[in-house]
Amino acid sequence: MTLRIGFLGYGFMGRAHANALARLPMFFPDAPETERRVLIGRDESALETAADRLGFAETATGWREAIDDVDVLFNLAPNFLHAEPSITALERDVHVLCEKPLADEFDDADRMAATAAESDATAAIAFNYRFLPAVARAKRLVERGALGEIRAFRGQYLQDWLLDPDAPWSWRLDADLAGSGALGDLGAHTLDLARYLVGDVERVSGHTRTFVEERPDPEGDGTSAVTVDDAYSAQLAFENGAMGSVEASRVAPGRKNDHRLELDGTEGALRWSLERPNELLVRRADARGFERELVTEAEDPYVEHWWPPGHVLGWEHAIVNQDSEFLRAVATDGAYDPDFEAGLAVQRLLDAIQRADRDGRWVEI
Amino acid sequence: MTLRIGFLGYGFMGRAHANALARLPMFFPDAPETERRVLIGRDESALETAADRLGFAETATGWREAIDDVDVLFNLAPNFLHAEPSITALERDVHVLCEKPLADEFDDADRMAATAAESDATAAIAFNYRFLPAVARAKRLVERGALGEIRAFRGQYLQDWLLDPDAPWSWRLDADLAGSGALGDLGAHTLDLARYLVGDVERVSGHTRTFVEERPDPEGDGTSAVTVDDAYSAQLAFENGAMGSVEASRVAPGRKNDHRLELDGTEGALRWSLERPNELLVRRADARGFERELVTEAEDPYVEHWWPPGHVLGWEHAIVNQDSEFLRAVATDGAYDPDFEAGLAVQRLLDAIQRADRDGRWVEI
Amino acid sequence: MTLRIGFLGYGFMGRAHANALARLPMFFPDAPETERRVLIGRDESALETAADRLGFAETATGWREAIDDVDVLFNLAPNFLHAEPSITALERDVHVLCEKPLADEFDDADRMAATAAESDATAAIAFNYRFLPAVARAKRLVERGALGEIRAFRGQYLQDWLLDPDAPWSWRLDADLAGSGALGDLGAHTLDLARYLVGDVERVSGHTRTFVEERPDPEGDGTSAVTVDDAYSAQLAFENGAMGSVEASRVAPGRKNDHRLELDGTEGALRWSLERPNELLVRRADARGFERELVTEAEDPYVEHWWPPGHVLGWEHAIVNQDSEFLRAVATDGAYDPDFEAGLAVQRLLDAIQRADRDGRWVEI
Amino acid sequence: MTLRIGFLGYGFMGRAHANALARLPMFFPDAPETERRVLIGRDESALETAADRLGFAETATGWREAIDDVDVLFNLAPNFLHAEPSITALERDVHVLCEKPLADEFDDADRMAATAAESDATAAIAFNYRFLPAVARAKRLVERGALGEIRAFRGQYLQDWLLDPDAPWSWRLDADLAGSGALGDLGAHTLDLARYLVGDVERVSGHTRTFVEERPDPEGDGTSAVTVDDAYSAQLAFENGAMGSVEASRVAPGRKNDHRLELDGTEGALRWSLERPNELLVRRADARGFERELVTEAEDPYVEHWWPPGHVLGWEHAIVNQDSEFLRAVATDGAYDPDFEAGLAVQRLLDAIQRADRDGRWVEI
Repeated sequence: MTLRIGFLGYGFMGRAHANALARLPMFFPDAPETERRVLIGRDESALETAADRLGFAETATGWREAIDDVDVLFNLAPNFLHAEPSITALERDVHVLCEKPLADEFDDADRMAATAAESDATAAIAFNYRFLPAVARAKRLVERGALGEIRAFRGQYLQDWLLDPDAPWSWRLDADLAGSGALGDLGAHTLDLARYLVGDVERVSGHTRTFVEERPDPEGDGTSAVTVDDAYSAQLAFENGAMGSVEASRVAPGRKNDHRLELDGTEGALRWSLERPNELLVRRADARGFERELVTEAEDPYVEHWWPPGHVLGWEHAIVNQDSEFLRAVATDGAYDPDFEAGLAVQRLLDAIQRADRDGRWVEI
Repeated sequence: MTLRIGFLGYGFMGRAHANALARLPMFFPDAPETERRVLIGRDESALETAADRLGFAETATGWREAIDDVDVLFNLAPNFLHAEPSITALERDVHVLCEKPLADEFDDADRMAATAAESDATAAIAFNYRFLPAVARAKRLVERGALGEIRAFRGQYLQDWLLDPDAPWSWRLDADLAGSGALGDLGAHTLDLARYLVGDVERVSGHTRTFVEERPDPEGDGTSAVTVDDAYSAQLAFENGAMGSVEASRVAPGRKNDHRLELDGTEGALRWSLERPNELLVRRADARGFERELVTEAEDPYVEHWWPPGHVLGWEHAIVNQDSEFLRAVATDGAYDPDFEAGLAVQRLLDAIQRADRDGRWVEI
Repeated sequence: MTLRIGFLGYGFMGRAHANALARLPMFFPDAPETERRVLIGRDESALETAADRLGFAETATGWREAIDDVDVLFNLAPNFLHAEPSITALERDVHVLCEKPLADEFDDADRMAATAAESDATAAIAFNYRFLPAVARAKRLVERGALGEIRAFRGQYLQDWLLDPDAPWSWRLDADLAGSGALGDLGAHTLDLARYLVGDVERVSGHTRTFVEERPDPEGDGTSAVTVDDAYSAQLAFENGAMGSVEASRVAPGRKNDHRLELDGTEGALRWSLERPNELLVRRADARGFERELVTEAEDPYVEHWWPPGHVLGWEHAIVNQDSEFLRAVATDGAYDPDFEAGLAVQRLLDAIQRADRDGRWVEI
Repeated sequence: MTLRIGFLGYGFMGRAHANALARLPMFFPDAPETERRVLIGRDESALETAADRLGFAETATGWREAIDDVDVLFNLAPNFLHAEPSITALERDVHVLCEKPLADEFDDADRMAATAAESDATAAIAFNYRFLPAVARAKRLVERGALGEIRAFRGQYLQDWLLDPDAPWSWRLDADLAGSGALGDLGAHTLDLARYLVGDVERVSGHTRTFVEERPDPEGDGTSAVTVDDAYSAQLAFENGAMGSVEASRVAPGRKNDHRLELDGTEGALRWSLERPNELLVRRADARGFERELVTEAEDPYVEHWWPPGHVLGWEHAIVNQDSEFLRAVATDGAYDPDFEAGLAVQRLLDAIQRADRDGRWVEI
């Protein structure tokens, strides 16, 4: 059986997932076969060009109709377009992989998860960093008890692409279209990994700031208002008693994609950064300091699909690994984690952090 | 004129300051001459041994009387003994350098600062890390505008000496004697540097945890309760609009003395860690990433007193540099920063973080 | 026009280049179209499986005949099979990309380069690391004079896959089949980059050692002799007066693929390691230390073909970038660098280092 | 008994050793007592100032006479003044600690070692880096077999204080006064640690270069010729079969005092740099990568004399540790390592490297 795939969106994420599908046969021969059937968007001319480049057979400007031609929808649209297409697809038992965060507001995310729970189709959220070998190895180490009980989680996601006050306005800077800024865009990843590696969160504090209030609008003569945060921070109290502190910024000079995680346990500790995605720093029980592990051994998650030890992978491999898992779940009717429930759990945290910030108090989850 | 010095306390800090006094003539020939007159403590036998080793002429078991024999009191006693001896000394116009935090509770700190304001003597608090060349250089860079306006401060102070649940109980683990745990012991340093490098704080959130509730008591057969935090975190809102996130732990595996600071500004950024005290990472305006500077050039603060470029300093040099500045202020009736007012400002933050934690809400300063 | 491609060899390098060809349409739309026509090898059954996985239409066990069916031959065979197929192909004006080192012995390499000089076809050697963005950027910086005149080159290529004395014997460990060990396998890369970044070498010293004299033979019951070096080092005197020291080991514990380069000039310096391929450390004129650059900006070589800033590439991208350049040269009859002449220049160094080692003296090139 | 100490020289090294003597009572209470009796030099006025600062009771301009007033001579003079004063002192059974390299030429070094062998006094050479806790711990790890058999030693000592072509001429740049340049000044340290950690060397190759042929003479109007090397490199073949590659430069941009060592063994590996003197990177048997150890634990060599874990030491502590060992040997008539024999062994390597460079061939030791 060949899965017919539709993509809603053809920007950065469209390329990343199209690349993933194209690479599966060579690197994940056990993954189901796919056909890039239809690329869905608004601008017909841009669509044609993109479809040609990304290997899609057809294009469509109406997602409602296009959904009927596919087995799987990759929802790669801006956040405000996550809910309706995903819900419609799931209602028709079309499988969905939706980019993060699950939605631009909590209610939409809640409806999406409810629909997913009713649907026979698989509903996945693209928390792709779980699928980097080093992060997946971190999970294994935690599960094996190499750290003992987790006491602290630190997660910071730092970028600087909005440092220049003349960096142009886009939908990502509009609260109605994106929901939030660094919080939802970057923090969603951090919060998912916090839950993945430590467990559920009991309550949160929150702090957000917008440093540049308006930016040049590339589609107009003037400027448009920035209505989302440039940076956020939050404290987390996990159900298991661990403490968390998380933070993100899109105005942190000198950081390009520095998603840093640290875990402290009763026995050991871990450190990792997305700017060096193949490296895991591990402080083992009774060791003095951290050992730098290059996570490129055949025994490491996903690595056997790729290259010999020492031949490092890049950012994009997380997407390929993720999509292979998702499509295998689709083909086998198997469970997929992280699903819309996991996406909703993160959305709940995003929402709580915003409320905690607004009210100046901790918010129970 | 030779300043007669008394030390209250002869442990780790006693050695550190005695070493500082001993080294001043060779390395800071312009500093005033000092005489290590009297070492004050409780245990006469231990006092004798320590006085011999640390170069003190006399010992005393009563601090009230001993104060009259000195021009300067170094208050190196446990936190609960900071207030009375310091206040008494200042009332008699004896100069005081007091270890941090200023006191074990806010009211004492408040009285100390009030007394200092009335006294003709110099009242200094030992926030020694200000006097490391790299930190002092960071201050210069901030003042010169190399970072632009500061938007974010991150400060983490991580140690692991309490990771072992059998690490023994001490006064540092008792709320009545120490005031707080990682918060006051380590966080006081971080909060001082936050104020030093960024400015005053407007409000804070707080989170503290005690992971090991009781520990073996080395002076008894059994165990004693730990009534202070093993770890804390807090969010800061600075008056100038910057965001802060700070944290400390004494149970962070693999960290020995990892006091890490990061500053983000509109133009540049800085990073530093106490485990590599001679290195400052600087992201200059329009640069891509961080430049590693070895802060050992003759132009760097304090360096001309020591060795040629590339010959790194250690932890202790912060104490020597600090004490030279303090004693020069004493000898010249000059101002000294950080003084008890600076100590009180940090105490106010420590107190607010504890209240914020207890009440689950942000607290205005 | 679609270029018909044949591969001689289908192991690690077969996968790497097949992946490259498969990715060109999406990421290098201007590269010529290719057809994976024929996969050439000895073992028919393994060939079938590999052809299926790597996307080849046909298989062949005789390279002489298969060459006639293709426009381009990728010679990915063991070193001792580099010469005849490459020469035969070039004599028939079939373009060739040959893996490094050019040959197992100097005379073969010399014949290959002579044939290439006579042929109308393009003859490329796969010094793939030139095509990593960070290395290509290093070249740009050198050319722009950011380092001034180069005075020193240090290059070390460290791995540990032969550390275990029970790691099995293979053709790579036989002097007749491979020519040399770490020297030709790893050193060839280093020496090419030395020539690329600094210039021609005038004379060399040499030192080689075999630490494990025999290893288990996976195709037999017993062991086979290791007749190549486990490690080499050499000193270089460049024509422009720069000094070089180079080294490689396949028994360096804890190094997986640590190809490290350092350049010192009159104005600045560079550092780079293959284990962190996206990072270039640059010491600019009058700076104190090295700035860590993440070479993922759109302005950096090859990066515009891939992902936004901060989304790091992996090892394999060097192969894709390289093959795109090679195929573009093929399609346009353009020059390609590094060609067989560059391969021969490196072979001359490999040969000279072996002679210098044997004779205990520097050897003129 | 109080040892009467004389220093020949009062520059950088004079300060370093005077500081060491001053600190011994507090940190090494078991070390013998010392009296800084006489400071010896040429310039009476400068001598007076220095003696005052460094705590010497007297000054002298004639070393022959001054030697009779002391028990121990610290020979801190330029290289060309190492031989006669040291020999004279030893002949009179005055103990000597001589700065490195042992002499400016081999014959002098040979005479010095011969005299030391005849003398009842202790003859020490100041290879101070052996006495840093991290280096001493490295030695322990090697001795305990943590690395297995050593196969490779890499040592590089990089500085940039001569990068500026206008950096002034000094005796260090004159072959008659210094013997050699980077080779003797920096390489002597590296070669000593090579012998300390790996063992005796059997043969060497060599390469030296002078990049800046003349420099402004601070004592004249014009320039003076530089007759020593700015950089050297060498290959080593150890008697135990290990390979070595060593190198130094005083024109390496961005390196202030980067003395880097790496050891590879059959089981593990080590890395260390003087710019981070407290850190030892250890790759243990069967580990993947290197663990970063902060060598500040009480169990580490010399650390118990200083501060609690995590409170890093600086460059100068190597001198204090070394001098405490030397003086203890003096007071107990005990053996001291490294002695003049060790200094001679290094001098033999320095000499051999120069000959190997001149003759273009490996030289047997």
